[in-house]
Amino acid sequence: MKVSIVMGSISDQKIGNDVISVLDKFGVEHEIEVISAHRTPLRAFEFAKTAEERNVGVIISIAGKAAHLGGVLAANTTLPVIGIPVKSSTLDGLDALLSTVQMPSGVPVATVAIDGGKNAAILAVQILSIGDNTLKEKLARYKEELAEDVKEMNEQL
Amino acid sequence: MKVSIVMGSISDQKIGNDVISVLDKFGVEHEIEVISAHRTPLRAFEFAKTAEERNVGVIISIAGKAAHLGGVLAANTTLPVIGIPVKSSTLDGLDALLSTVQMPSGVPVATVAIDGGKNAAILAVQILSIGDNTLKEKLARYKEELAEDVKEMNEQL
Amino acid sequence: MKVSIVMGSISDQKIGNDVISVLDKFGVEHEIEVISAHRTPLRAFEFAKTAEERNVGVIISIAGKAAHLGGVLAANTTLPVIGIPVKSSTLDGLDALLSTVQMPSGVPVATVAIDGGKNAAILAVQILSIGDNTLKEKLARYKEELAEDVKEMNEQL
Amino acid sequence: MKVSIVMGSISDQKIGNDVISVLDKFGVEHEIEVISAHRTPLRAFEFAKTAEERNVGVIISIAGKAAHLGGVLAANTTLPVIGIPVKSSTLDGLDALLSTVQMPSGVPVATVAIDGGKNAAILAVQILSIGDNTLKEKLARYKEELAEDVKEMNEQL
Amino acid sequence: MKVSIVMGSISDQKIGNDVISVLDKFGVEHEIEVISAHRTPLRAFEFAKTAEERNVGVIISIAGKAAHLGGVLAANTTLPVIGIPVKSSTLDGLDALLSTVQMPSGVPVATVAIDGGKNAAILAVQILSIGDNTLKEKLARYKEELAEDVKEMNEQL
Amino acid sequence: MKVSIVMGSISDQKIGNDVISVLDKFGVEHEIEVISAHRTPLRAFEFAKTAEERNVGVIISIAGKAAHLGGVLAANTTLPVIGIPVKSSTLDGLDALLSTVQMPSGVPVATVAIDGGKNAAILAVQILSIGDNTLKEKLARYKEELAEDVKEMNEQL
Amino acid sequence: MKVSIVMGSISDQKIGNDVISVLDKFGVEHEIEVISAHRTPLRAFEFAKTAEERNVGVIISIAGKAAHLGGVLAANTTLPVIGIPVKSSTLDGLDALLSTVQMPSGVPVATVAIDGGKNAAILAVQILSIGDNTLKEKLARYKEELAEDVKEMNEQL
Amino acid sequence: MKVSIVMGSISDQKIGNDVISVLDKFGVEHEIEVISAHRTPLRAFEFAKTAEERNVGVIISIAGKAAHLGGVLAANTTLPVIGIPVKSSTLDGLDALLSTVQMPSGVPVATVAIDGGKNAAILAVQILSIGDNTLKEKLARYKEELAEDVKEMNEQL
Repeated sequence: MKVSIVMGSISDQKIGNDVISVLDKFGVEHEIEVISAHRTPLRAFEFAKTAEERNVGVIISIAGKAAHLGGVLAANTTLPVIGIPVKSSTLDGLDALLSTVQMPSGVPVATVAIDGGKNAAILAVQILSIGDNTLKEKLARYKEELAEDVKEMNEQL
Repeated sequence: MKVSIVMGSISDQKIGNDVISVLDKFGVEHEIEVISAHRTPLRAFEFAKTAEERNVGVIISIAGKAAHLGGVLAANTTLPVIGIPVKSSTLDGLDALLSTVQMPSGVPVATVAIDGGKNAAILAVQILSIGDNTLKEKLARYKEELAEDVKEMNEQL
Repeated sequence: MKVSIVMGSISDQKIGNDVISVLDKFGVEHEIEVISAHRTPLRAFEFAKTAEERNVGVIISIAGKAAHLGGVLAANTTLPVIGIPVKSSTLDGLDALLSTVQMPSGVPVATVAIDGGKNAAILAVQILSIGDNTLKEKLARYKEELAEDVKEMNEQL
Repeated sequence: MKVSIVMGSISDQKIGNDVISVLDKFGVEHEIEVISAHRTPLRAFEFAKTAEERNVGVIISIAGKAAHLGGVLAANTTLPVIGIPVKSSTLDGLDALLSTVQMPSGVPVATVAIDGGKNAAILAVQILSIGDNTLKEKLARYKEELAEDVKEMNEQL
Repeated sequence: MKVSIVMGSISDQKIGNDVISVLDKFGVEHEIEVISAHRTPLRAFEFAKTAEERNVGVIISIAGKAAHLGGVLAANTTLPVIGIPVKSSTLDGLDALLSTVQMPSGVPVATVAIDGGKNAAILAVQILSIGDNTLKEKLARYKEELAEDVKEMNEQL
Repeated sequence: MKVSIVMGSISDQKIGNDVISVLDKFGVEHEIEVISAHRTPLRAFEFAKTAEERNVGVIISIAGKAAHLGGVLAANTTLPVIGIPVKSSTLDGLDALLSTVQMPSGVPVATVAIDGGKNAAILAVQILSIGDNTLKEKLARYKEELAEDVKEMNEQL
Repeated sequence: MKVSIVMGSISDQKIGNDVISVLDKFGVEHEIEVISAHRTPLRAFEFAKTAEERNVGVIISIAGKAAHLGGVLAANTTLPVIGIPVKSSTLDGLDALLSTVQMPSGVPVATVAIDGGKNAAILAVQILSIGDNTLKEKLARYKEELAEDVKEMNEQL
Repeated sequence: MKVSIVMGSISDQKIGNDVISVLDKFGVEHEIEVISAHRTPLRAFEFAKTAEERNVGVIISIAGKAAHLGGVLAANTTLPVIGIPVKSSTLDGLDALLSTVQMPSGVPVATVAIDGGKNAAILAVQILSIGDNTLKEKLARYKEELAEDVKEMNEQL
């Protein structure tokens, strides 16, 4: 099963790359596309509707400002949708955070930190690891690496 | 030409009624429907696409929390869309305000005050009054009434 | 009918230019002037009062901080007034956003995103397109261009 | 010299009364009127222009939401203008605070706390006391009373 | 596989019940326990460490104020952790939202809306439905119900 | 009568200079001193107590972060105290704004915009102009200059 | 050694009682007084200066709005000062929080949660327990009680 | 007795150094370690549990974003824990401030200003000075130095 990464604009590519680098590390297949909830609404609609057929297990949406992308995708699929709010030139990402997380009852978007590309990818891997022992082991090893990173930081001190 | 009022939920009906009472006062025709960007996304899509055929001149959307409704409608029509952010149980309407107003380049939503049903209706009338002298005169008279309201307030003092 | 662009200060000119570039693209006539609600209040008053005589259909106000300009213009005309809140050196534009959007009952300002010059212009064109089929067609083509922009972004990926 | 109290709406009367009760205590003459920056803009203009002729020394404006009243009055007079931001049904008064205090360079509004009617009145008295020894003495006595209030609070403990 | 619901305090029980009612509707097994990140840190530690052995697939944490519970659980498991920020007596849930969502790189918490018990449950079901066709069908039917709810709202109009 | 300028730290000197440049323009005498409410509390106490003896008519305090300086001075004098909240490295001046403006009942601080040195000076001149016709005339001329500045901006367009 | 509790107003008494109930539980001696940084500044000054002579080990200040009390006390003593920001009628305690915690370099106030009377008391006990084994043991037992409270909550489930 | 400094990441080292420079000035012994509440939760647990055995009197935690470190340490010790919220790339430190200060009842974290390394160190010294007359004298001298700094600032003017 693969992860589908959807960016609201090409300007979100840096964060898209953060997602990809983590997915690659875990050997998780992915697709990436720019889809705008507002400029290509029909594409957003179709993309979400057909995600399962493309063997997508989790969708990650990346959007700033009035970030409707996650919600629009979630409205059109029963797959879990992870939303990454993006900081833009004003309001420090608070607009994107609230637009992504405050979803009304019935249609959740699993929101991670502002600009949190890596964490969205980890979360996607955690979701896909349910019933996938290889991924589970990789996640366990990743947790050890996180601890080793801290150990190295202490050696730097 | 009529005004189309779209509410994200029946719980927004009080604000919908504020809109209607002003439109009725100005003799402006209107239609009203509950459409959820997240629960009935296809209906939102179709509704916006066919609005012009129904002789709609302006759309007013009413939604709270991660208020995507205005943006989703605006994405699917070239008619002006007015957004009313609604205060819900947390964050005092700030979430709905930012989700409505911070639209990305290319797809505006004309945002009014939180819970600003009356002002959304006035704005719709102002828009429709372009090239409609009867409405223009009614708006001029309405401005006088606003001033008279203040005069009455002073008599109360 | 033309669009009137009013800036609170010459420092808002960059955003004024964003507005103009979109209006030019749509072939919409415009006028531009610096008027300060606080430094030239009488001019603001007269300008709004006489806008219709000058064949203005929509006014766009551009102002930062305690952005009263949109409200002051709206108080003196029945034309629709679009407000662009401008980010200044502190508070990230939140002050201008709230000062522009939270208008009291009776006198709306159609607020767009902070620094949203392009969207203010699109909204003005949408408003003027009511009863103007040429503008309507241009808006439809513009929507297609927005979608093509996204297509090009995907080619860049 | 008297203090002029201007309220944006009759709904601000409770705060207007807080102002009056303090001014009465200090024996400072006052006038009060409802004037809306948006519904009676010409009256706001005239009122501020003629304030000095009416022997007004300080103006106190009371307004909520996008509180432009203080700024509009200050734009039309060289008298000091004190602004009281009022809490309304959303955003806890933050909108009125920022709309009142964040005035652009050249036209200040002396802002007090949200709903701070009493403090606006004290500030007005402090301003009028410059060159008025009777008021100065009353202010000195008032400071003693404030301290005595605290003493009484301690007796309650 | 079951869902584990962890509340920071018994005062979060109302939201816990919202979670349970949705899980019951979908026939998803669950366990519930009060565990405090700060008052019973060792229990939080053990609980997360042993969740997989108890056949838990997803953990839902419910906490207010400086809501560390989701992060503390996520630190000790590779299972996906969903965080529900709870509104408490001050700051309208903003403190809990930021404490839950702004997780540092490496350890995500999938955050839903403030007080969003139902959405946390839906998200948990979506996650568990990966590779579970029965749940997938139930989710599809649930989406239809959401649309029918809107239809009923329109009949009420 | 002179204006007393008090800065919480030498780092506020740029804003102090903004104040001075306006006061010099109006020919208003001034004194300036660094006094910290927290590092030199006794000096703050004495300075405020003796301000009137030094022929001070208005005090301007300039402070950032938890800006207590204005309040501490106001607590020890009956002269009007103007507070300028200063933006520091975090929170964009919101901390200083709220610490300055939200004074409790009985002890006002007349607050101007964040970093609003010029406006604090204008406000001080307005206050001193009560009963000083020369200053009144200068203020009237200043208002004309503000309008001329706008005129020049329009010539730049 | 005792704890000194200082409230900015009698209206803070409820929170003062929260502090006292915890101190009593730990058998820690205390004194309580209403002192206003703004209404009784000299008393605040003297009180802090003489605290050590009265055998005070820690000071707890309780204040709302522009809460200067903690800072003013800390400016006049080298004892640790704990600040409790109090929620008042507007801004949900954010003003008091920022006024208390954002102290400039050199003069800290140890800030606890908004309305956090109990935690201020626990912190005071923790501070006094340094070199006091009886208090240390009581704190250890208290931690156990906290855990037992959670256990009881689970029995209620 | 020594002060234990715990940083959530090596990126917090600049603030750690601010703490150390003050502790060195006061001759207070210290230890420093990078410990992550989320990446090395067991180490955080053990570190706090054994702090007293290592003769630690006060713990200072330094963390950004969803800053759980202070709370996690406080949950596992009865020593006073001082929390320094760190500003990261978004939200200007507000997330870290709320995550640190809004601790639930029973487990306080003594919070200082965002990025307030020096003040955390002063607070730690104040706490350790209880029953240590040498430190008390150094703190008294430090207060004098603060006043002298202000004096020097005035000489610069």
